[in-house]
Order: sequence, then structure tokens, then C-alpha cells
Amino acid sequence: MSTIREICKKAREGKDVMASLSTVAKNKALEEVADALVAQTDYILSANKKDADEWKSKGKNEGMLDRLLLTPERIEGMAVGLRQLVSLDDPIGEVLYMKERPNGLRIGEKRVPLGVIGIIYESRPNVTADAFGLCFKTGNAVILKGGSDAINSNKAIVKVIRDVLEANNIAPDVLQLIESTDREVTKEFMKMNEYVDVLIPRGGAGLIKSVVENATIPVIETGTGNCHIFVDESADLDMAINIIFNAKTQRISVCNACESLVVHKAVKDKLLPALKKRLDEKNVELRGDAEAVGVLKDIKTATEEDWGTEYLDYILSIKTVNDIDEAIAHINKYNTGHSECIVTNDYNNAQKFLDKVDAAAVYVNASTRFTDGFEFGLGAEIGISTQKLHARGPMGLKALTTTKFIIYGNGQIRE
Amino acid sequence: MSTIREICKKAREGKDVMASLSTVAKNKALEEVADALVAQTDYILSANKKDADEWKSKGKNEGMLDRLLLTPERIEGMAVGLRQLVSLDDPIGEVLYMKERPNGLRIGEKRVPLGVIGIIYESRPNVTADAFGLCFKTGNAVILKGGSDAINSNKAIVKVIRDVLEANNIAPDVLQLIESTDREVTKEFMKMNEYVDVLIPRGGAGLIKSVVENATIPVIETGTGNCHIFVDESADLDMAINIIFNAKTQRISVCNACESLVVHKAVKDKLLPALKKRLDEKNVELRGDAEAVGVLKDIKTATEEDWGTEYLDYILSIKTVNDIDEAIAHINKYNTGHSECIVTNDYNNAQKFLDKVDAAAVYVNASTRFTDGFEFGLGAEIGISTQKLHARGPMGLKALTTTKFIIYGNGQIRE
Repeated sequence: MSTIREICKKAREGKDVMASLSTVAKNKALEEVADALVAQTDYILSANKKDADEWKSKGKNEGMLDRLLLTPERIEGMAVGLRQLVSLDDPIGEVLYMKERPNGLRIGEKRVPLGVIGIIYESRPNVTADAFGLCFKTGNAVILKGGSDAINSNKAIVKVIRDVLEANNIAPDVLQLIESTDREVTKEFMKMNEYVDVLIPRGGAGLIKSVVENATIPVIETGTGNCHIFVDESADLDMAINIIFNAKTQRISVCNACESLVVHKAVKDKLLPALKKRLDEKNVELRGDAEAVGVLKDIKTATEEDWGTEYLDYILSIKTVNDIDEAIAHINKYNTGHSECIVTNDYNNAQKFLDKVDAAAVYVNASTRFTDGFEFGLGAEIGISTQKLHARGPMGLKALTTTKFIIYGNGQIRE
Repeated sequence: MSTIREICKKAREGKDVMASLSTVAKNKALEEVADALVAQTDYILSANKKDADEWKSKGKNEGMLDRLLLTPERIEGMAVGLRQLVSLDDPIGEVLYMKERPNGLRIGEKRVPLGVIGIIYESRPNVTADAFGLCFKTGNAVILKGGSDAINSNKAIVKVIRDVLEANNIAPDVLQLIESTDREVTKEFMKMNEYVDVLIPRGGAGLIKSVVENATIPVIETGTGNCHIFVDESADLDMAINIIFNAKTQRISVCNACESLVVHKAVKDKLLPALKKRLDEKNVELRGDAEAVGVLKDIKTATEEDWGTEYLDYILSIKTVNDIDEAIAHINKYNTGHSECIVTNDYNNAQKFLDKVDAAAVYVNASTRFTDGFEFGLGAEIGISTQKLHARGPMGLKALTTTKFIIYGNGQIRE
């Protein structure tokens, strides 16, 4: 097994290979990887079975086993994801602009790969193919560090991919897998600034926190979503109920699900009972402040902790406010910078909410569930950034690129 | 003195104040700050004298004292910088695009402030006014941590600025100065992710390394420049000599100065003696590989260390190569991702160099000294990024902004 430094160095060498690949060559390899993954289904499943057996023999949580398990359908899903990437425009090489300066220098900015991307993730082996595909399409070398529970599955998937690369005369070192399951090695990896340009953690809050705290390599943080919907005085209440029901219950385990309702006091008596009736269809538990409890009676009282909690469950907190300013202040205090919505028919309040709420995606009159790369028309998604550097909100292929200045002169010197 | 957490919290509150300021209000305050700094010259100079006396009494390096010293001219220079910001377009509020999705959602990206920016710098008090101005123009609250040697100067400058803000009914807490000179406090500051959105270190390699290693807040790294000029076989040698002379000697202490020459072996015999004659005007020391020493005889032999050194001095290393591929490989091995140049008349080699050299700015036939925000037409500059996330190369006002998605709906829910 190579040392982490050797792995990173090899990826760094692969960077130049990737930067020179044409779109045609990248798309051909992606198609063939998709085919090979399906063709090698049995091989991948037998490796995955080792991981599953190990999981069970250690007596680990059966409920969490599902995310580790592969099936023929899931492998087919990986292939579909890769084929979808083929159909997307290659962002590399685009010159964003070129202008001529007074001294005749022609200066432009050109889109280029980031270089070497490190992806640190948990025990979902499908991320292995997905992360490889996104980085490969954007001309980057990639170093993968998946969860140790999935190590056999990841080794098998990476072997299938590297074999296809080799058959395409692409140095397989452009894809590296860290096989060590030692946490200290992962920490060492996070400090390999000499070789790695960017780290992207994909997973739960604990993983992301560990990367942010330990990495010296620049990190693109993907984050949690404590998303609010504010129902303003002028809202169409039927629309509000539809949006809240959708944002809360359409899929509860995702970061763009609604976790907290903020209600203008003028509409609480009319809105809350009708909303509760609708949410009862899905047995959503409500936790309200004193005013909300006053209307709905038999619901729990929300605590300070509730306002800051991403439930990822059939639970919704309810805060009543006197006006939009109080709503915005509450949201800016407790949100995680993900997705926030106002339901209103008031022009000024709609604009105020869009202006003042500090989040990656701010909505008027629509469900927060739309915050993702496909729904926003980006075509693919590596994650949703809740930080403000480089990329904010759903990250498509362009988030995996950078730019460089290119300058055409004819002998200019600086006076 | 406030604790670091209190300081950061106040800045966070100032964030909302800043985000609501109109361009007119920001420009008026900047003009008045410029006037006030000049009007308060005596007050600032007396504080600066305290710092200088302290410096001398500690027996510190006299040569380094200059960067700490203020003069009426330098204070006037600070005012000029702020007035220049007034004349630049305000980047905030621009909607980069807005498109309609098939479901009728109108989704756009809008340019907004980063929020709270932390700037960590050394003992040049003029950075205090400059960094404030750039962050203020872009609608950000700012926390400054200057070198402890300049603490009295910085306190005086910050007081003058905050008084103007107060007179303009802008909460002065939008500008915070960390007065503690305790290094542990600075380290604590670098981990205040809850309140601070971005850290920008401005200074030498040691400062930047310390921030990169200790910060958990996202960092925009500004870096050193080990810049090369490659003279290709087909180069106009007179042009090459002009460009090298300019890039090496026009200002030696800057990150875009040329530190290393790479020469195609076919032109070494003709180029090097003529170049040496020109560089002798400025007593530039040359350190070459065996081939270069073979031509120039009485120059030093370059060591491995030379290839990786940013001299910031009248020294130039010389490497000879057999072809452009060897030149590119050498440059990509030793450069710091700043500015690189080819002098050539060969079309294919020009394109190859632009494509394959991995740096923030890649030139054909022009001096590397042009890499800065003013020369690139950005109007102002917070530094030159040598990392690949968020901003690469000279960073103008836009580097101090982020975007948010704004979404106009009319009741859309996700199926």
C-alpha cells in the first residue's frame, strides 16, 4: 500500500494528463466506465458482500446497513449518472471574456480544471463512481477517501474504472483511492497542500466538521439545512399550506426540507388549524411557541434548541412573529445559510425578504425542496455549498473549475 | 478591552447594517473618511510616533522600521486610495442572470457581500485604511488584526474612521480592530466560524502559512511569486531582453518580479551575453545551470534551492532546456502559481504554454510585472490569489463578494 504522500504525488502527476484530455476523450471514457460498471456487476456485488458481512459480524446498526448495500439497480444508477455527465457541456476551455488594455495587452480569463480534488465521504459506495465522474468530466485528477466500511466495494469500483482508463490510454493514476482506514492517515491527507488543490467533504455534519477543523487544504463546505418558511400577513393561505406540506413531507431526510415555520400573528388563527389538519395526514409533530400553542392547544412547546435543530424527521417547529422584520431577524439568527422562503402577496415584503435573508437560496412563494442542481438547471450536482467562498448553493460542474488569466502581448513592459 | 468573541459578534451585527447601505451612503462615508484622515494627520502621526519609539526602544531592525512609519504624504496616499474606491462601480446587487425554468420558477443569481471579513496583516498601518475601504465599498463588515508593532497607529486610524461612520449614522461596529497583541487571541480569532465568513491574510510567507495552518474559517490565500520567463527558440531576442530586464529590475521586492529565466538551448549563446550586459546595469547577480555557466563563465552555479527561491532581490537564476516541453515541466515543478511568461514567435508554442502552464497569469511576450489589479483593469486590489478557490490572480472588488440564488415562484411545489 502506498503512503499518503505517494498517492497524492501520483494524483498530482495525473493532473497534467487530465488537463490535456479533450472533451471527446473524456466522454468516451465516461461512457465506457458506465458500461464496465454494469458488465462487472457480479464482481462489484461480491466485494460489496464482503463489506456487508463485515458490517454484520461487527454487530453494527442494521438500519444504517442500507446505505452501504449495492444492488444491480444501484449499479445501473451509477452508470446512468455517468452517462448523464456525458451529455452535459464541458465547461473547460471557455474564455469568459477578453479585453484589450490601453497598452495593447489582451487580457482574458479562461476556465480551467482545479487540478487535484480530494473527496472525503462516508459509506455510500455509489459516491465513488459519482465523484469520479464529476471530477473527470471537469478535467481534474481525484483522490477518493470513502468510509472504511465500504473499502472492498470502493476498491472494486475503482479497479473497474482504472481498467477502462488504461484501455483508453489515460494514465489510471488520475484516480486514486486511499485504502488505509487509519484516521491519522486521513488527517495527514487533509494537510497535503503541496499536491491537492481542494477538499470536498460529502456526508453528515460530523464528517464536515472534522474536515473543516483539520484541513489546511482549501475546503468547499457542503452543509446542513435548517430551512424556514415565513407565512406573511398577505399570504394566500391555501398556497402556504401546499408549500409547507411539500417542503416538510415530500422527503424528510434531505437538507432542503423545511424544519421551521414562521407565522405572522395576523394569520395564525386561520392558518395553523388548517395546516395541522393537512400535516396530520403524515403525522407531523408540531412544536410551537406560546402563541402557536395557544391556537393549536395540544401541541408541544418548542424550546430554544428546537429553533436551531435540523430535524430530518416528521417534526416542524412554529414561531409566531409580529411583522416581517421579526421574521427576518429570527431566520437570520437560526438558519444555516441554506434555503429560506416567504409566502406573501406583498411586493415590498417579497423584495425585503429576498434582500435581507442571508442564505444560499431565498424563495418567494415556492417550496424550498427545489434547491438542488438538477432543479436549478445545472445538470449535475456535487453538493450544496452553505459557505460563501467559491460556490454558494447547488454546485454544478463549474464549481469544480477555476480560471486563469491569459495575456497576449507584443513586447509590453511596465513603466 | 472586548474579548475576541464579543468583537466578532459585534461585527456580525454590523453585517446587516452594511448589507442595507446604499451605494450613495457608502461613497459619501468613504469620501468623508478620506477627508478626516487628512484632517487628523497630526493625531495619527503622534500615535505613529509612539509605535516608532517603541520599535526603537526595543532595538528592533532599523531597516524594517520604514514600513511602520507614516508621513503626511503616506496619509494623503491613504485618502487617495479611498477616493479612488468611490469612483468604482459598486458590484453589490447585480443580478448575474435570471432564467425561467420549465415549471415557471424564475431563478437568478445576485451578487451580495460576503458578510464579515477578517483581515490579518503586518505592520504597515496604511493597510488599515485600505482594507477597511475595500470591505466597506463591497458592503462587508470587517475585523482588522494588524501587526502589534503598529497598534497605536491602527487604533488612531480606526478611531478616525469610526467617528466618521457614527456621524453618518452608520453603526461604527461595522469596523472592528483587535487590539490584543496576544498570539493566542489571533489563533482564537481564526476559528470564529460562527461569526466570520472569510479570512484574508496580507503579508509575507510566514504570516500566510500561519493563517492557513491555524484557520478553520475559509481563507483566501495571497501568495508568493516564483515567476519565470521562458525564451523560446523563435523569440525576438531584443524583446526578450527588454522583458526580462523589466520583469527583473523594475521593482525587485514584488511578487510579480521575475526570479528565474528558462532559455531554449538554441538561443543561449546569442541571448545570454547580451542579457548579462543589460542586467549588469543594475548589478543583477546571475546563477546558472552548467550550460549557462558554460556560456557566461564567471557566474555562480545554481543549486536545487535556487530553482525554488523567490529572491525579491537583484538575483536571477538561469535554466537551459532542450525544448518547450522541458521548459513547461520545469516551470510547473518550481513555480508558485503566480505569473509565468513565454517569449516566442511560434504560434503553437504560444498556445501550448498558455494551455499547459499552471499559474494564475500566463503571458505571451509581455512582462510579468503587469499582474496586478490596476493593470488588469480591476480598478483596485485586495491582493493576488495564488490558490484556486473563489478568486485566482489579482482580486478586485468582486473577490470580496459572493452570490445568492433568488427564486420567484407562484406556488410551485416539488413532485
